[in-house]
Amino acid sequence: MISKTFEFSILHKSKKSSARRGRITTPHGVIETPAFVTVGTKGTVKSLTPEDLALTGTQFVFCNTYHLVLSPGVDVLKKAGGIHAYSKINEPIITDSGGFQVFSLGGNRKLTINNSNDDSKQKSTLVSISDEGVRFKSHTNGDEYFFTPEFSIQSQVAIGADFVVSFDENIYYGATEGYTKRSLARTQDWAKRSLNEFHVTRDTFHKSKQQIYGVIQGGMYKDLHVNSAKKISALPFFGLAIGGVSVGMSKSEIRENVSWTLDVIDSDSRPRHLLGIGHIDDIVDMVKMGVDTFNCVTPTRDARVGKLYIKNGILDVMLTKYKADLSPIDPMCGCYTCKTFTRSYLHHLFKQRELLAYRLATIHNLFFMEEYFKKIREKNETGKL
Amino acid sequence: MISKTFEFSILHKSKKSSARRGRITTPHGVIETPAFVTVGTKGTVKSLTPEDLALTGTQFVFCNTYHLVLSPGVDVLKKAGGIHAYSKINEPIITDSGGFQVFSLGGNRKLTINNSNDDSKQKSTLVSISDEGVRFKSHTNGDEYFFTPEFSIQSQVAIGADFVVSFDENIYYGATEGYTKRSLARTQDWAKRSLNEFHVTRDTFHKSKQQIYGVIQGGMYKDLHVNSAKKISALPFFGLAIGGVSVGMSKSEIRENVSWTLDVIDSDSRPRHLLGIGHIDDIVDMVKMGVDTFNCVTPTRDARVGKLYIKNGILDVMLTKYKADLSPIDPMCGCYTCKTFTRSYLHHLFKQRELLAYRLATIHNLFFMEEYFKKIREKNETGKL
Repeated sequence: MISKTFEFSILHKSKKSSARRGRITTPHGVIETPAFVTVGTKGTVKSLTPEDLALTGTQFVFCNTYHLVLSPGVDVLKKAGGIHAYSKINEPIITDSGGFQVFSLGGNRKLTINNSNDDSKQKSTLVSISDEGVRFKSHTNGDEYFFTPEFSIQSQVAIGADFVVSFDENIYYGATEGYTKRSLARTQDWAKRSLNEFHVTRDTFHKSKQQIYGVIQGGMYKDLHVNSAKKISALPFFGLAIGGVSVGMSKSEIRENVSWTLDVIDSDSRPRHLLGIGHIDDIVDMVKMGVDTFNCVTPTRDARVGKLYIKNGILDVMLTKYKADLSPIDPMCGCYTCKTFTRSYLHHLFKQRELLAYRLATIHNLFFMEEYFKKIREKNETGKL
Repeated sequence: MISKTFEFSILHKSKKSSARRGRITTPHGVIETPAFVTVGTKGTVKSLTPEDLALTGTQFVFCNTYHLVLSPGVDVLKKAGGIHAYSKINEPIITDSGGFQVFSLGGNRKLTINNSNDDSKQKSTLVSISDEGVRFKSHTNGDEYFFTPEFSIQSQVAIGADFVVSFDENIYYGATEGYTKRSLARTQDWAKRSLNEFHVTRDTFHKSKQQIYGVIQGGMYKDLHVNSAKKISALPFFGLAIGGVSVGMSKSEIRENVSWTLDVIDSDSRPRHLLGIGHIDDIVDMVKMGVDTFNCVTPTRDARVGKLYIKNGILDVMLTKYKADLSPIDPMCGCYTCKTFTRSYLHHLFKQRELLAYRLATIHNLFFMEEYFKKIREKNETGKL
């Protein structure tokens, strides 16, 4: 079932926790796990060239199907030969299903879901959900789109990342038990349709150089959650992604939710991706629970407001105390920014809103994340996790 | 008088025009002239690292004293060891006097100059000009500054560029004969004070690794103009800059003004810089009149709105027709952007306001400018100008 160009192997398992040291092989190279997945929403990691990105040590890039469908559009990406050829990003890439954005952006944030089982009672006029799919208007130009599992997969196959993700409904935080049940049944059905569409379309276009992740949604009701996780993980996906834990939940709820999932899915054969989580203080806990990869916008978003990652927290380079500080962000850091520029210069660039600021800060934070994961992998190998 | 680290030599003079092929030697390397001077207002060429800048072929960088005094401030630059050490820009740098910004920005654009000879009748409360200097409020934070020739030169020496520029009053377009006469007398006096201050302060700080340009202002009255140009050029400046021709004048007025100056200043011993002019359609004419170097924000500013320079004009990459165009901006161009990305990708980045857009476009336009000047120098050497 799985093409020879793709492989997942576990190199080492912790005796103290569920942490694992693994390796994902793809046509665009190897990802040593646990790994951070850098977000490049629109086929560009904001402010970086592919060469900058490589120098940060980035192993894996996450692009958003919703945004790419809107611009440059699937036809352009298809004509260009896929997202790697178009963006010149060299690392393995994963696209999401579009589901998260359809529900959070597509509705222009005006979505109000009726908890009734009757879909026709939904109040939003911008997003309408049915078992067939999700109809919504673009948050940028008002164009109408109909996202179905088939449309999502066809789009993702045309985008041509190494990994695509099955189409899912992102359950909103606070959904009732009734709504959760209905939503999970829909996600389950959409997972099967996604898998089917993937096998039909990928060979006609990218000659098997793609694999697919299933998305596990669960919600806050343990029985429903466990049942759903079991059903999704029973399907022949290459990898499993855990969704629905990034919006609204407290840190303890996130941990509880992820553990419900990880307790029931098969352990060694597939990589596990946690969608949208990547705060420094979450990562080690999640790795110990058995998560392999994490995508999160926080390190790059923090960078663009001058919040620079250092060993014991965050250095806010906009503070006046750095105005004349001629030391690097972190004297021990080996990134281009730290080897070249001072806190004072970065302070000046940020205060003056100079474009170079965002790039230098992004390079630093991504390098920091990669070094951080390198240490996690080392700790894992030496039995310290 | 001139330090051995600085030299200007003329390698070839045209027989058909006043064009010359020259070379300016500085502690930061050689500038082959005619040359474009890339503007990096605040000690950063917008969006580029020093490495990017070097790859465009940039030979010479222009920074603005007014902006650098406001941020990061002269004390920071002094502590850092000057603008090269602070910004890591490797090319020779010239700073302006601050005069242009003091008059155009410092007054928050509300300056209304009374044409009377009596300075006390000036109407502006934000900028007040006297023979001593110019008092004005910062356009960013309202702090009050008093720019005098001495303050400008002390600031520029601390900034530490290869070249500093004498403090001048930028005559506004449309000034009466009376006002022009008075203003030119002031600029003449300020030139002497600048030169004096330069010789007093530079040796205490940068050990002679700087040289100074005088600024010739002239205005629209030929007799006054010629008289002023003669007086400024009689002073022992390393180079001569022509000011006051970038705001308000028509193209024919610019040519007339520049020719008045060039006709009277000595011909071979000093480099001639034209302040603020660098539109493609002006350059060849000005080179033929004998200008050696040009600074202008237009190529970088155009880049940041998607106006990309090509052989026969400008390619506006925001146009819908480039949405799916998979060719480079210019198939014959050797810049990083053209060798790596397509018009379609640039269109997508610009439309989505992605930060990478501004950088890729800036790299292309600067590379174009450098290639353009390379051709001018070749034409000059082969007697075709």
